[in-house]
Amino acid sequence: VQLITLTTDFGMRDWFVGTMKGVIAGIAAQSRVIDLTHGICPGDIQGGAFSLMASCAFFAPGTIHVVVVDPGVGSERKPIAVKTAKYVFMGPDNGVLSWALRNEQVLETRVLENQRFLPERISHTFHGRDVFAPMAAHVAQGVPFESLGPSAETYVKLDWPVTTIEPGKVGGCIIHIDRFGNGITNIPNAAIGLNSSCGIETISEWSIPIKSFYGAVPSGSPVAVPGSTGYLEVAVNGGSAQETLHFKLGSLVFLHTEPNRAGKLNDATL
Amino acid sequence: VQLITLTTDFGMRDWFVGTMKGVIAGIAAQSRVIDLTHGICPGDIQGGAFSLMASCAFFAPGTIHVVVVDPGVGSERKPIAVKTAKYVFMGPDNGVLSWALRNEQVLETRVLENQRFLPERISHTFHGRDVFAPMAAHVAQGVPFESLGPSAETYVKLDWPVTTIEPGKVGGCIIHIDRFGNGITNIPNAAIGLNSSCGIETISEWSIPIKSFYGAVPSGSPVAVPGSTGYLEVAVNGGSAQETLHFKLGSLVFLHTEPNRAGKLNDATL
Amino acid sequence: VQLITLTTDFGMRDWFVGTMKGVIAGIAAQSRVIDLTHGICPGDIQGGAFSLMASCAFFAPGTIHVVVVDPGVGSERKPIAVKTAKYVFMGPDNGVLSWALRNEQVLETRVLENQRFLPERISHTFHGRDVFAPMAAHVAQGVPFESLGPSAETYVKLDWPVTTIEPGKVGGCIIHIDRFGNGITNIPNAAIGLNSSCGIETISEWSIPIKSFYGAVPSGSPVAVPGSTGYLEVAVNGGSAQETLHFKLGSLVFLHTEPNRAGKLNDATL
Repeated sequence: VQLITLTTDFGMRDWFVGTMKGVIAGIAAQSRVIDLTHGICPGDIQGGAFSLMASCAFFAPGTIHVVVVDPGVGSERKPIAVKTAKYVFMGPDNGVLSWALRNEQVLETRVLENQRFLPERISHTFHGRDVFAPMAAHVAQGVPFESLGPSAETYVKLDWPVTTIEPGKVGGCIIHIDRFGNGITNIPNAAIGLNSSCGIETISEWSIPIKSFYGAVPSGSPVAVPGSTGYLEVAVNGGSAQETLHFKLGSLVFLHTEPNRAGKLNDATL
Repeated sequence: VQLITLTTDFGMRDWFVGTMKGVIAGIAAQSRVIDLTHGICPGDIQGGAFSLMASCAFFAPGTIHVVVVDPGVGSERKPIAVKTAKYVFMGPDNGVLSWALRNEQVLETRVLENQRFLPERISHTFHGRDVFAPMAAHVAQGVPFESLGPSAETYVKLDWPVTTIEPGKVGGCIIHIDRFGNGITNIPNAAIGLNSSCGIETISEWSIPIKSFYGAVPSGSPVAVPGSTGYLEVAVNGGSAQETLHFKLGSLVFLHTEPNRAGKLNDATL
Repeated sequence: VQLITLTTDFGMRDWFVGTMKGVIAGIAAQSRVIDLTHGICPGDIQGGAFSLMASCAFFAPGTIHVVVVDPGVGSERKPIAVKTAKYVFMGPDNGVLSWALRNEQVLETRVLENQRFLPERISHTFHGRDVFAPMAAHVAQGVPFESLGPSAETYVKLDWPVTTIEPGKVGGCIIHIDRFGNGITNIPNAAIGLNSSCGIETISEWSIPIKSFYGAVPSGSPVAVPGSTGYLEVAVNGGSAQETLHFKLGSLVFLHTEPNRAGKLNDATL
């Protein structure tokens, strides 16, 4: 079964996602579509990039990952596809694919322009339906990647928020807040040492203990854990850390760790 | 693969949609269900009608479109199926199917009453599960359309909001507001001319430029575009037009176009 | 087709559900996943238990029902599977499966520990992805139930809220509030008699008529109906009973019925 994943900011209120699936089913009836999420905030390219990065590797090789977070739809930005050793990624060339691609072996990039695989009329406001859905479906049907359109030299890369390293201290920030109110940081789990603790700029006086699971602290207490995405996560057991600790995207987080461990962190890890 | 689409006001919080899919899978294991949307506001028949109209034509012929926006469930209103040249539509006979049917060639209407295709016990509050799901699944399994129940003369038709035409001016209204806060009108894209502009009653002093895509105006500025559903759309680049322009469903919209073009609009277009 | 249902508190905002589906598809490519709901409130074990109970029986025998409402993830609570005469249920052993199991013939319980069916690295915060998804997929692939892990004597059982019975009066409470604002009670439809009426503690002066469908009272008026889940439901025709009657989970509901009927209710019915 050929899998196609969808990640968008289309929400669940309108017919946008369903229409994309109709177009895909009309071209590639045997393919199967899996929704990663459609709850990306409108136009939040970073949120889409992080969601894709956090989940794409859990799919079998050959999966086609389509991301439509596309505030510039219809403008100069190109719709692209990137072939890697394991997957095909498709989306607008605005950086939304780039964090996932940091972990993949990129082989080739194409601009999605071949009119053979596009409908006669293409709206300027809904490329999810008119460009990405048909292109993904044709790839699912076995169309050679090279035929999708002209080759592109490169693609737009989003900056990855800087992580600072000093002996005994790693600094990062909140990069995603999930529906439970947990704050996912850009500090890799590998930076967490024994007996380390963590702080967040919004609650200057608190030292947050690092444990392996949420329930290791009393209900209502803050805790930091090695997160399931591979990055340190700030949580509150049985509650919303976002509400309790008042952080938001970009809030600074500090990991106090033993000097040896932090000393070993370097560009390869962070 | 036999496709069934679902459009409901059931939301994502309860088990209603999942249960319908269980019933369908139990009868038509090989069929595939695609969600158009379950985010129609509770009981909003017009919202359901517009969503179906905006998306149904993107599905392959033979698709079964099921809509359950059914505030009168259990009352006198009949559950019906309408066969057209391309599709089968099913839903309560309250008008929710009627806007989509304006664009289809209607062949036949049936009342969903044949007890052979219904469960022994039918609740009076959840016909999605007890009437529409089993009926759709049986049609997917190849049951002849005529056997679903007795023939009906006609079905309830919702009024389509009036569009007024004067030389140089087309008047319509906001008919749907999407998750991005874009306002979709009932003014067809065909009415848009070169150098035309648009106004909305909530912001009397503003003239909104008409462009082909959102990003053609500065971020935060209002813009009107030929929409992907075939109707003029009022938007704000990078923001919510609903919040910026304070419109709601039914707000009047005026398109100022060149006299020639508006003169050509008539009943066939609008 | 092997069906797997998912019921979680993961919401639709993040990639959690999609990732579980990726893991399942990677192991059991031919299985099909149906979402019951992912809108359970964060950590609301009772809400998950009720949703599963209300919907699981509408699926064909052999279906695998997976529930992940798991505030204690990573702690001492065990991940379990329960085999019944009709289904396999999987979830954390915190009671979330127990209300559904009241209606099933339980055959055997296993703790999900066999590392052959688990990934090398198991996070302490996302067992949906790392434990329940792979275990469900392996069962879908035909792995014998006994091989999932060691046998367990029993599983955690949630209390079912008490229903009181006096001649002519049955007392219960609101056990679920759905997206329409309807209040579902723990009073079985079987307790409803002819000419009975109903009251709710939040609106002491009102007697709510019992009808067979919502539209049997004027728009905006409260009504109680035999609900589609098998329990008495408190509603407002065309509106939200939750907003109109100000009830919440646990609010007491009284059914005034004829003495004979209430007299026949007993442990077997309630």
